[in-house]
Amino acid sequence: MSKLEDIVSLCKRRGFIFPGSDVYGGMAGTWDFGPLGVMLKRNITNLWWHYWVDQRDDMYGIDAAIIMNPRTWRASGHTDTFNDPLIECKECHSRFRADKLGDNMNEGVTTEEFLAKRIKCPNCGKFNWDEIKSFNMMFETHVGAVSDENSVAYLRPETAQGIFTNFKNVVDTIYPDLPFGLAQQGKAFRNEISPRDFILRDRECSQMEIEYFVKPAEGMKRFEELLAATHTFLEETMGLPENLIHDLEVPEEDRSFYSKRTVDVEFDYPNGREELMGIAYRTDYDLSNIQRESGKNMEYRDKITGETFIPHVIEPSIGVERLFLAVLTSAYLEDEDRIVLRLPENLAPYKYCVSPLLKNKPELVAKAREVYQKLKDKYTFVTWDDSGNIGKRYKKQDEIGTPKCVVIDFDSLEDDSVTVRDRDTTEQTRVKISEL
Amino acid sequence: MSKLEDIVSLCKRRGFIFPGSDVYGGMAGTWDFGPLGVMLKRNITNLWWHYWVDQRDDMYGIDAAIIMNPRTWRASGHTDTFNDPLIECKECHSRFRADKLGDNMNEGVTTEEFLAKRIKCPNCGKFNWDEIKSFNMMFETHVGAVSDENSVAYLRPETAQGIFTNFKNVVDTIYPDLPFGLAQQGKAFRNEISPRDFILRDRECSQMEIEYFVKPAEGMKRFEELLAATHTFLEETMGLPENLIHDLEVPEEDRSFYSKRTVDVEFDYPNGREELMGIAYRTDYDLSNIQRESGKNMEYRDKITGETFIPHVIEPSIGVERLFLAVLTSAYLEDEDRIVLRLPENLAPYKYCVSPLLKNKPELVAKAREVYQKLKDKYTFVTWDDSGNIGKRYKKQDEIGTPKCVVIDFDSLEDDSVTVRDRDTTEQTRVKISEL
Repeated sequence: MSKLEDIVSLCKRRGFIFPGSDVYGGMAGTWDFGPLGVMLKRNITNLWWHYWVDQRDDMYGIDAAIIMNPRTWRASGHTDTFNDPLIECKECHSRFRADKLGDNMNEGVTTEEFLAKRIKCPNCGKFNWDEIKSFNMMFETHVGAVSDENSVAYLRPETAQGIFTNFKNVVDTIYPDLPFGLAQQGKAFRNEISPRDFILRDRECSQMEIEYFVKPAEGMKRFEELLAATHTFLEETMGLPENLIHDLEVPEEDRSFYSKRTVDVEFDYPNGREELMGIAYRTDYDLSNIQRESGKNMEYRDKITGETFIPHVIEPSIGVERLFLAVLTSAYLEDEDRIVLRLPENLAPYKYCVSPLLKNKPELVAKAREVYQKLKDKYTFVTWDDSGNIGKRYKKQDEIGTPKCVVIDFDSLEDDSVTVRDRDTTEQTRVKISEL
Repeated sequence: MSKLEDIVSLCKRRGFIFPGSDVYGGMAGTWDFGPLGVMLKRNITNLWWHYWVDQRDDMYGIDAAIIMNPRTWRASGHTDTFNDPLIECKECHSRFRADKLGDNMNEGVTTEEFLAKRIKCPNCGKFNWDEIKSFNMMFETHVGAVSDENSVAYLRPETAQGIFTNFKNVVDTIYPDLPFGLAQQGKAFRNEISPRDFILRDRECSQMEIEYFVKPAEGMKRFEELLAATHTFLEETMGLPENLIHDLEVPEEDRSFYSKRTVDVEFDYPNGREELMGIAYRTDYDLSNIQRESGKNMEYRDKITGETFIPHVIEPSIGVERLFLAVLTSAYLEDEDRIVLRLPENLAPYKYCVSPLLKNKPELVAKAREVYQKLKDKYTFVTWDDSGNIGKRYKKQDEIGTPKCVVIDFDSLEDDSVTVRDRDTTEQTRVKISEL
């Protein structure tokens, strides 16, 4: 198995991530987080929020609805341009994403370029393709009791627009000084033609986005600050190894026309280097679009000079699932006799596992319960395990990333000490209960 | 203005809740949480999770996808029965929810019963109605590159099914003992024909649900335990006054046929008594449906006796928005000279507000910044306010529910003391900075 397959297997085996709707044979491109996965995901999202919002003086939260007025997507360009190239086999009517069928094709591939590659249908093996069509990746639905073109709405394809559309309401209610950021965590949906790569390219993902509003003259400086803060977050708070993280400076010809600078922060995933997150200097593009589409003034008035202008925006944006997989990738270690998730302590679902050496000795169980409760009161994230033998328990706790296993044995009843076994070194030390 | 209108106004004015897609004229039935609203909402949802999951030994988390395999909704009955009665005026083609047009009609109202009421169209005033039709409230979409009946999917109308469908995977990975609960927080969607009552009846809401799996013989006892824990949560953790909370014992004829007991926990909202949350004893209904639809065995094997059976389920379920509005309703107080949100300290967005008496005195500002940083390091949720005069600042902090305002004046420079003003009593006391 590849390392990615090993991680997928561990995720399912230990209750981190299950295929979505598994009991009904699945639902392509969706994944469900199980008990351990929820704990890790909550640690990741809460640490992100704490780092970027709670600790800072210049960040505020937004939590916008997933279903937005469709004018949002006309203004942002998603209605027209959020497309993938779709190609259909005229023989078997299978549909594919044209640019993913062969090598060296990009999303703008034309029918002629595609046909020149002489690729056969992966389903029926024939070579009889229809023209490439643009396929819009927004999920469409209808709102209200009438189902017609006037009731069309979309599931948001990104959380960012839920921030931009609230810019004016925020400025008019809490009067923030520039620069300030609005942060949001929430679901976004992309109707991928071919979802793949586990949680890297799913149809439903959780985003964590910040729109940081700045004075136009300060844009480049603020970009640098946010890029530096991003690395601190990824390396120190998330514990990702520096050598697996790479800044890709996106050259001008590959950037959106409105972007003054874009850095893709890439990560060495098991299957190769992929985008982990992006920081884009989006200038005044989004607020100007909203101003044009809504007819409402999106200018900010400087409190001291009285000058009015549309602020520029720097956008650090990350997908929770991509970060989750980066964390697992860097924590996962398989050696001769064990699999271990070396998660940093702030991310580990459980901080301690408490066990009685034997489960059929009431005095050991009682003492262990006492230690468990003491640790649970103090650290909350403590688990109890009296299944199988100690070796099996260590194996399980290694696989879910528990840093310390505490075992209560017969000596504990005499000396009020316990054995503490370290996940990473597997070393066992004797510690007084009062010093845990 | 009614009290509800006062609360809606405060929510918009102070950045708690804005109408969804406000800049584009709105999107009926959606609401966006602003900076203050996100803080309060996060406090509510995090305290719920801490109370029900983290602190307990018998609860685990689930975070399932919003788009589920459509067989989920066939098994649960939503495809057939999640309907509202829709009536259309043949003159102007306006559509309404039939049971909401007159008094004393329920969701099962027939066309004959409706016509007998002689209700005229609220839009055109004519009396010329079509037959009542069943309108399914699930939002429909299509998944994948082909848009036909085979690609239909729905936005989940409840989070509960994301728990039930994962039951077997959870049991097979973490081997929990009965009773145990699976908890989930997440979005659910209902295509209400007429969304109304602010955030009480919106099209997109956040649910917090627990499915608590029990031995059939213990069902009634576990129900009592969860009902008691619910009251502790609502009254102690959320600080809702006991006298505004009412248990409605749903009589047998009003319960779902499979439910052995249901209690609707109601709350006295500004516009009247309404359901705040429900606790339903759903027996083995949901797991049995899944077993039938999927053909997979949903039985649980008792670890000691080896007996196998489908567990019974108790479901405490609450909508975040309903709880949010209950919190605001009980905190909101308007008297002669001020509006104040008397939020419990654990829910208040900011715990302290720090101000210099005058903002144009650098030595006051410097001292105030020092105090601000000290409090921020300790409590995180601290805000700075140097706008307007002290009276205006108190007014603002009262409206957003900040328990304490700390003011640094000229005496502070001499005696290292500050004025601390209490939100509820408006009393001002002099406190040493070191004792804050």
